[in-house]
Amino acid sequence: MDSSNESEALQRSDVKSFFDSAPPLRNGNLISERLKEFIERNSRSSESGRPVGVVCVTSGGTTVPLEQRCVRYIDNFSSGHRGAASTEYFIKAGYTVIFVYRRGSCQPYCRYLPEDSFLEFFKLDEDSTIQVSESHATVVKKAIRDYRKAVEEGLLLKLPFTTIFEYLQILQMVATSMSSFGQHGMFYLAAAVSDFYVPWESMLETDPNILLQKADMALKKYRMHVVVANALATYKKEVVAVTNSGKTTICKHNEEEDIEEQLINLLVAMHSKYIGQVG
Amino acid sequence: MDSSNESEALQRSDVKSFFDSAPPLRNGNLISERLKEFIERNSRSSESGRPVGVVCVTSGGTTVPLEQRCVRYIDNFSSGHRGAASTEYFIKAGYTVIFVYRRGSCQPYCRYLPEDSFLEFFKLDEDSTIQVSESHATVVKKAIRDYRKAVEEGLLLKLPFTTIFEYLQILQMVATSMSSFGQHGMFYLAAAVSDFYVPWESMLETDPNILLQKADMALKKYRMHVVVANALATYKKEVVAVTNSGKTTICKHNEEEDIEEQLINLLVAMHSKYIGQVG
Repeated sequence: MDSSNESEALQRSDVKSFFDSAPPLRNGNLISERLKEFIERNSRSSESGRPVGVVCVTSGGTTVPLEQRCVRYIDNFSSGHRGAASTEYFIKAGYTVIFVYRRGSCQPYCRYLPEDSFLEFFKLDEDSTIQVSESHATVVKKAIRDYRKAVEEGLLLKLPFTTIFEYLQILQMVATSMSSFGQHGMFYLAAAVSDFYVPWESMLETDPNILLQKADMALKKYRMHVVVANALATYKKEVVAVTNSGKTTICKHNEEEDIEEQLINLLVAMHSKYIGQVG
Repeated sequence: MDSSNESEALQRSDVKSFFDSAPPLRNGNLISERLKEFIERNSRSSESGRPVGVVCVTSGGTTVPLEQRCVRYIDNFSSGHRGAASTEYFIKAGYTVIFVYRRGSCQPYCRYLPEDSFLEFFKLDEDSTIQVSESHATVVKKAIRDYRKAVEEGLLLKLPFTTIFEYLQILQMVATSMSSFGQHGMFYLAAAVSDFYVPWESMLETDPNILLQKADMALKKYRMHVVVANALATYKKEVVAVTNSGKTTICKHNEEEDIEEQLINLLVAMHSKYIGQVG
């Protein structure tokens, strides 16, 4: 084995250990079905002369989780602007695009929209019809028109990722699916991909049993009036409001209810009592 | 000095060294003006019995940058759902809210909207009026109505952050501004705040001079056909397409143009030539 073969064998074993140690892809079956349908449609249409080619555009940054139930992670910053813009120009040039993008990053045909909440530029008129404020009307209408055209003509398949594990597993699925296109397939890898990862098995988990101890500690150390304690796994269903005089557990009564409604009512009552005592 | 005083003095010196070493807040003046205007309006209206109180809700996770021109950072995951939901319930209870949120995290009144691009649920009818697809009409209209009401009545001030430096500097400004409300002010700190930071001065910068060397290396190592090299500071203005047979520099001609238009045209031409040679 010469040194180039040796280095290749090493790379292959690195790749194998990465995929072996990765957590299973959620929605793997759904992604697989959507890919299959997209590839089949494009194989048929290429017989009639269209599309020019199929390109997989990756976009945005990957994260490296530092915990299994992930709170902390190392992120690679990327707005996703280049990937989103390039997707539009590939479609314009006659390609179909598999857009593999970081959740929340810049989307094709949305680049000229305001960055803030889209609620900023809509209002309702008297008969409850949605109106776009004059200043944004042109860009919003163009965005809707171009996006719908790309989706309705089947020119754009969007697949989101967050972690380095999801990114590489999805990319592998896309690569396998696209092999049928031969030289007509292209990979345009604009994503900012982490150049390291923390093996899934080696991550330490936090201990939910010390939650209330930590809440008591925070109450004293930071001189808070209330600490609202919740475990990551159940934070939408149960919280405990910890004060110097005791603990109040709040549970969600039913699926439709927000636990925040009870929580804010409790805090407002405490605040009102506090104002009465002090003021 | 007893041990509790000693520990307080230590904390104060930690706080001082944090703020001394933090990079200056961009838009600090703008934030200061918006805060001032909001506080003044709410001081006036509280004389007429409204609002019940003013609450600063923090929401979403902070990042710890690992580089000054930041590509990599350690992030604290938080959807921002609790902060956004709580903001809605505080407003319902008669409070005004200063919503200090991580850019891109969950926004008040948007929690029931589809997560994906909002373009998914709009379409244009024949006379170019924006229509909401039937399935989403109720939630979208409610979201627009509630959001506009909160903003127009001056009940909600939104201030975005990304890094731990921005978060703590903005929180300090809000705390100073809110002191005039006395016991009527409340802090509801739902943000997931990093419990460490990397001092700004100690960060190493990447060297733009080795860019093309790295591109050549990647071309060989990963057997790419093309590597598109760009420096972070100029990535929207200049890129270099590096192949085995040479380098092509692409520059933006004017402000209106996307550099991706030229880049994709070049790649499409290269791809077409490649298909011709191989196929």
